Amino acid sequence: MVFEPAFTEGLVDIFERRIVFNQVLGLRVTEVLPDRVMGGLEMRPELVGHYAYNRVHGGVISACLDALGGLAVMAAMGARHMDESVEQRLQRFARLGTIDLRVDYLRPGIGERFVLKAEVLRLGSRVASTRMDFLHTNGTLLASAAAAYIVS
Amino acid sequence: MVFEPAFTEGLVDIFERRIVFNQVLGLRVTEVLPDRVMGGLEMRPELVGHYAYNRVHGGVISACLDALGGLAVMAAMGARHMDESVEQRLQRFARLGTIDLRVDYLRPGIGERFVLKAEVLRLGSRVASTRMDFLHTNGTLLASAAAAYIVS
Amino acid sequence: MVFEPAFTEGLVDIFERRIVFNQVLGLRVTEVLPDRVMGGLEMRPELVGHYAYNRVHGGVISACLDALGGLAVMAAMGARHMDESVEQRLQRFARLGTIDLRVDYLRPGIGERFVLKAEVLRLGSRVASTRMDFLHTNGTLLASAAAAYIVS
Amino acid sequence: MVFEPAFTEGLVDIFERRIVFNQVLGLRVTEVLPDRVMGGLEMRPELVGHYAYNRVHGGVISACLDALGGLAVMAAMGARHMDESVEQRLQRFARLGTIDLRVDYLRPGIGERFVLKAEVLRLGSRVASTRMDFLHTNGTLLASAAAAYIVS
Repeated sequence: MVFEPAFTEGLVDIFERRIVFNQVLGLRVTEVLPDRVMGGLEMRPELVGHYAYNRVHGGVISACLDALGGLAVMAAMGARHMDESVEQRLQRFARLGTIDLRVDYLRPGIGERFVLKAEVLRLGSRVASTRMDFLHTNGTLLASAAAAYIVS
Repeated sequence: MVFEPAFTEGLVDIFERRIVFNQVLGLRVTEVLPDRVMGGLEMRPELVGHYAYNRVHGGVISACLDALGGLAVMAAMGARHMDESVEQRLQRFARLGTIDLRVDYLRPGIGERFVLKAEVLRLGSRVASTRMDFLHTNGTLLASAAAAYIVS
Repeated sequence: MVFEPAFTEGLVDIFERRIVFNQVLGLRVTEVLPDRVMGGLEMRPELVGHYAYNRVHGGVISACLDALGGLAVMAAMGARHMDESVEQRLQRFARLGTIDLRVDYLRPGIGERFVLKAEVLRLGSRVASTRMDFLHTNGTLLASAAAAYIVS
Repeated sequence: MVFEPAFTEGLVDIFERRIVFNQVLGLRVTEVLPDRVMGGLEMRPELVGHYAYNRVHGGVISACLDALGGLAVMAAMGARHMDESVEQRLQRFARLGTIDLRVDYLRPGIGERFVLKAEVLRLGSRVASTRMDFLHTNGTLLASAAAAYIVS
């Protein structure tokens, strides 16, 4: 199955613009598939967490991974409810909430650009579980995360 | 025991200014004790995560709690190494790193100002474990977290 | 408010006997209050995880803390639904499930007897969040945990 | 590279027999590679967590995944220190400890036999991070976990 452009564009609009803090982060959505979403992030001086190494702040990583996990859940719900209008499926975002998030910081977040990946491990009727990765553009895994979301 | 003003001011300088992303968040350090640190955060439009409810972004919460947990570890290490100079104790920050973080989002982060609290559950020679809370100014617990840090 | 003995005894029966693996662990329920539950565990050779130190297995700790968090949720739901019969409230256990669990192992689990404590941080209509501690009988915190449960 | 049989057998002996609680669980080691280890578990009445569904106890899952993550770290350290004797590499187990563990319970643990998988995401000089899966024999992912271990 393939998403209508209006659905994908709607999701990108929500995640890149309407969630204001994602704009502050500079989070970009690069791919929206029913079972996987991808994103990107450019390094900028505002995102520095450790001045000694010009390392991206751990909070930037966790914020981006939490957002991308939520996007993956929205995509999976969008795929499950293709009988609904684009508008109805996008409105499901209003009822999405993160229950909890775990992030493992594996390697220093040093780079000019980062790649983000999220997949839904299980989409239930009330809870969705996701797994997310934060990678260097050369493919090195810098951080890995898991989260649970309330859905409806 | 009481910290020298130079040590406390040095920590505040690191956490409020030198960690640039903490400045973007607007994180304030309000208390630094050997066994507990406190912080504050003002709500601002840039921090919004859910436009429908003017809710603070979960990533803001996790970033602040990660930072405050790190501050609590710095304070606990500062208390353990009072034989070192202020400069030496502050330089320990360069070797501090978050291993992992878990955040439980309990209630919507809606408010004009938030209070943050962090305490060290255990400070080992290589790993420190912390527990953090994100509260409404009326005392309601909005999010709770745990993290492990590498220290040396 | 105070629970009827039949409700408390019903919970103890579920958690000490009907959950067979809790019997294998030797988990004891020692207190059931609406906002906090307590338990106990005797050290036995079968529970050893690290033969070099006669340390209790991390899995014993996580299993006990997961169980006790579930008990705390059952108690909190019992208190919220005092209008239901004891039987109805106990049957809510059938719909309880752990979403996820995080355990921080702080200090070696060495001792003859351990004390467990769990409290509900938030009881929602669909999800409950808990915090649990695993302590030495002398009060030292050996492990700390957080979990989310699906409820209904 | 390939492990000497004595090393693999030594690890199996530690994880299947000397860790007594793993014996109580019935955990079996089925494969030990430098970058991935596999295990198996037979369902038995003692392992039941939810009598209504004959479901395996969440604590059994977390205990097995914690153990298997530790085994993966031992294998990765074994591969890194091939210059050491088998005995020296096996003795590294004495200094291995779980820092923390997160388990996501995705689907009911119902089945006659389960498959376990663990891989090391990063092996540092002081901390190792792992990812683990608990699967039905038909390949369905039932639970997923992440853990950090102290190593030396």
